[in-house]
Amino acid sequence: MNLLFVGDVVGEPGRRVLLNNLRQLKDKLALDFIVVNAENAAGGFGVTEKICLELFEQEVDVITSGNHIWDKREALTYIVGEPRLLRPHNYPVGTPGSGWYVGETAAGDKVGVLNLMGQAFMHPSLECPFAAADAVLAERPADLKMILVDMHCETTSEKTAMGWHLDGRVSAVVGTHTHIPTADERILPQGTGYITDVGMTGTYDSVIGMHKDKTVKRFLSKLPERLETASGPATLSAVFIQLDADSGRCHGIKRVRIAE
Amino acid sequence: MNLLFVGDVVGEPGRRVLLNNLRQLKDKLALDFIVVNAENAAGGFGVTEKICLELFEQEVDVITSGNHIWDKREALTYIVGEPRLLRPHNYPVGTPGSGWYVGETAAGDKVGVLNLMGQAFMHPSLECPFAAADAVLAERPADLKMILVDMHCETTSEKTAMGWHLDGRVSAVVGTHTHIPTADERILPQGTGYITDVGMTGTYDSVIGMHKDKTVKRFLSKLPERLETASGPATLSAVFIQLDADSGRCHGIKRVRIAE
Amino acid sequence: MNLLFVGDVVGEPGRRVLLNNLRQLKDKLALDFIVVNAENAAGGFGVTEKICLELFEQEVDVITSGNHIWDKREALTYIVGEPRLLRPHNYPVGTPGSGWYVGETAAGDKVGVLNLMGQAFMHPSLECPFAAADAVLAERPADLKMILVDMHCETTSEKTAMGWHLDGRVSAVVGTHTHIPTADERILPQGTGYITDVGMTGTYDSVIGMHKDKTVKRFLSKLPERLETASGPATLSAVFIQLDADSGRCHGIKRVRIAE
Amino acid sequence: MNLLFVGDVVGEPGRRVLLNNLRQLKDKLALDFIVVNAENAAGGFGVTEKICLELFEQEVDVITSGNHIWDKREALTYIVGEPRLLRPHNYPVGTPGSGWYVGETAAGDKVGVLNLMGQAFMHPSLECPFAAADAVLAERPADLKMILVDMHCETTSEKTAMGWHLDGRVSAVVGTHTHIPTADERILPQGTGYITDVGMTGTYDSVIGMHKDKTVKRFLSKLPERLETASGPATLSAVFIQLDADSGRCHGIKRVRIAE
Ligand SMILES: [Fe+2]
Ligand SMILES: [Fe+2]
Ligand SMILES: [Fe+2]
Ligand SMILES: [Fe+2]
Ligand SMILES: [Fe+2]
Ligand SMILES: [Fe+2]
Ligand SMILES: [Fe+2]
Ligand SMILES: [Fe+2]
Repeated sequence: MNLLFVGDVVGEPGRRVLLNNLRQLKDKLALDFIVVNAENAAGGFGVTEKICLELFEQEVDVITSGNHIWDKREALTYIVGEPRLLRPHNYPVGTPGSGWYVGETAAGDKVGVLNLMGQAFMHPSLECPFAAADAVLAERPADLKMILVDMHCETTSEKTAMGWHLDGRVSAVVGTHTHIPTADERILPQGTGYITDVGMTGTYDSVIGMHKDKTVKRFLSKLPERLETASGPATLSAVFIQLDADSGRCHGIKRVRIAE
Repeated sequence: MNLLFVGDVVGEPGRRVLLNNLRQLKDKLALDFIVVNAENAAGGFGVTEKICLELFEQEVDVITSGNHIWDKREALTYIVGEPRLLRPHNYPVGTPGSGWYVGETAAGDKVGVLNLMGQAFMHPSLECPFAAADAVLAERPADLKMILVDMHCETTSEKTAMGWHLDGRVSAVVGTHTHIPTADERILPQGTGYITDVGMTGTYDSVIGMHKDKTVKRFLSKLPERLETASGPATLSAVFIQLDADSGRCHGIKRVRIAE
Repeated sequence: MNLLFVGDVVGEPGRRVLLNNLRQLKDKLALDFIVVNAENAAGGFGVTEKICLELFEQEVDVITSGNHIWDKREALTYIVGEPRLLRPHNYPVGTPGSGWYVGETAAGDKVGVLNLMGQAFMHPSLECPFAAADAVLAERPADLKMILVDMHCETTSEKTAMGWHLDGRVSAVVGTHTHIPTADERILPQGTGYITDVGMTGTYDSVIGMHKDKTVKRFLSKLPERLETASGPATLSAVFIQLDADSGRCHGIKRVRIAE
Repeated sequence: MNLLFVGDVVGEPGRRVLLNNLRQLKDKLALDFIVVNAENAAGGFGVTEKICLELFEQEVDVITSGNHIWDKREALTYIVGEPRLLRPHNYPVGTPGSGWYVGETAAGDKVGVLNLMGQAFMHPSLECPFAAADAVLAERPADLKMILVDMHCETTSEKTAMGWHLDGRVSAVVGTHTHIPTADERILPQGTGYITDVGMTGTYDSVIGMHKDKTVKRFLSKLPERLETASGPATLSAVFIQLDADSGRCHGIKRVRIAE
């Protein structure tokens, strides 16, 4: 079973490089399932129904997100009727939408996707993502073998800890949010694929996808310089994950990078 | 001019893999200058005179650090007499030691090393590292062409912004502190080598170098579980940086990884 | 029903002024129930069995705490056998001890005490205190009319919000943790007594109970100056709360201050 | 010399209670100098030229601010031509405006006003306020005896430390930002008046001036509920400070509270 997870899509450049390459990539890698983190897809801040529909049309199976999920307020209502758009699962009970979805490949294999958010340095403070993961796994359907976790999180320690916490219990834990790909992809000892951050899909001549001169100026001046998405050639950042459909174990995790 | 920068050395495993491999690496890569971040070298917390001397004996030229610099209090006095041990330069005026040192290669080329610390999510709040860098560069000796910056920092945005801020003004900006190597090494348009994080030198079957089970337990329980350095095979994480000695421009930056 | 709530007792000076005045205060104010926050009672950091026993001997009914509860590790075991020592209730399920206790006055009236901790700027991140309060109240015994909440918290907004959240559902919400008494004690419209912070019981010629020169020096130098409890004359800071035992409504809340 | 310092004015209710009472208060208390923190005067977020002019017309001498100073972007330009509007002085060199102004009473006595912002838990990270205060004092005019400091800051420890740091060197240090008045007004041993927080001028049936139900809902749901200024009767919160004009020493500091 071949799965692609695409890191935080940032603005028009991110959507462009993704949509222009996804079908080709699907063929080339014989992808069975595609998950995209789209929390910054709408101009860097949030996601809209229109953008989700574009992604689903390009054969994206599930969309994950993170702290920017509600930046476009329409997400609060759209998510209610669209179970394939996930928000962090450890929001309080009663939050619109869900962070857990079980999809199916064309071959009829079930794939669970769980979206979590870290607590350290993230606003607002959500419930413990470790306990939230345990709760989901305790109620997983018996026949669900493959589970992918998007751990949206600031610190490397909280992400790495989640990898170890879930090793052997899910197929893969991939980190998002920092927008820079890490070079530590590996298969953990009990068979879970892991990477600390997939990196963003957007313009890298930027500061995490935003206009670099304005952002640098803001760091220097401490003034509320308005941030806007950087333009220019973009790069798709993803991980290609190979799973054994019967056991759910990961037997391959590899960074994918396609630059315009 | 060939330079090696070694990421945060964590505890005995980190020192071991470093000391067992450094001379060989020096020969193999024809290294002219070696810089090591040692903020976690002493049991994960701080650095001692003894450890610094071991490193200097193995031909380390300069030692950098970060938020853990004072964890072993002897550093407060040792640093005063040892200019090759750096603390973040943007500590207030009057802080023992310095974050700026100009060394020399065997061939007589000068190399400046600047150690900075980010402001976001770091304790305590130091002065603006962007302004601190500008101040150092304004007073650089005219004949100093090669400068390496260790940007010790939590967020990818502050590190990336520092890369752009110094592009064309220093030879390389390398990030430390998150302990996970990033896959974004590159030469910026004006000739500055850049990587968001070099990654730690220590045991990766861990949570950023510390015992993984205890750390995971702490994330779940929120109790003050004592952290200790993980044991087991360690990995040296570094970047190999090639500079033009005359212009100071970077013409190569490559990740180096040596696993036990 | 007359209740006294004593704010964060800091070190020996705090214990001294408390123990020297409590019995007298009990007589003078005809106190039926005494609650003391003791998270800093042991040298500024944590609480011990010995200190708790001293307080219980002086007719303290319940001891609350906060982020410093585990600073002295013996608290982790002592709390298991001593239900009158509370830790923040919104620690995860499985944490030793509890943050909820129902005591009884000499006249046989039941008094519930609930200890919560805020999420903003507090380490570690506990579960949502608002939801935790709702869960406790949903299961309150039918005959329990009087409930006091110690909201241990950094920001005024989270404390004030808790006051409004519980107005009419508990007898009083008192804030702790900032160590400075606020001047906003009042009875909220639905009958709940409220104050943002009771203030500490300790030496006020200090920085929140700690040695002032050392703390100021630390703010200036950003160095890890060791903090120690200030000495000198101490002040007891408390609130005197009058409740209607039948309805649980508050009909009086007044600051109490006794200086040595 | 009689000085009034009015705490964070929040929205229309705050401006209303202030403007309706200021002249009367000036007569009654024989005020010589009036300083108002107006960082939340414009709908809770920032300040405008129009609002500043209204305040100056009502005989306000100096307006201070804090982290919200730039919420209305016109402040970035207005402040350049209006030295009586202060922003935190510890913004970087080159920031529009200033945080230091020397005014004059009708009797010809000079009064310096210094606006600082804390570092802990405040965004963005400004320069060290302790060092910034030292720098201003090092260059104070010889004939300037009276100086008032507005320390805009989240934590009680940083504010209290500033009080001790400046004791005997300025006339008064008053805290702002938390919007809740503290009950710790006092004259420090070397003659400096001090209070940790003056409290806001606005509607107290609120969460720090904002609509209470919406704010409580936001704490529970963790959703981005839009905050708006609370309406209803407002309260003016201020401190009345009496100084010796010759020495600059404080000989009286008293909370003032006027409720609609
Ligand atoms: Fe993102
Ligand atoms: Fe994010
Ligand atoms: Fe660090
Ligand atoms: Fe480190
Ligand atoms: Fe506390
Ligand atoms: Fe405390
Ligand atoms: Fe503020
Ligand atoms: Fe304010």
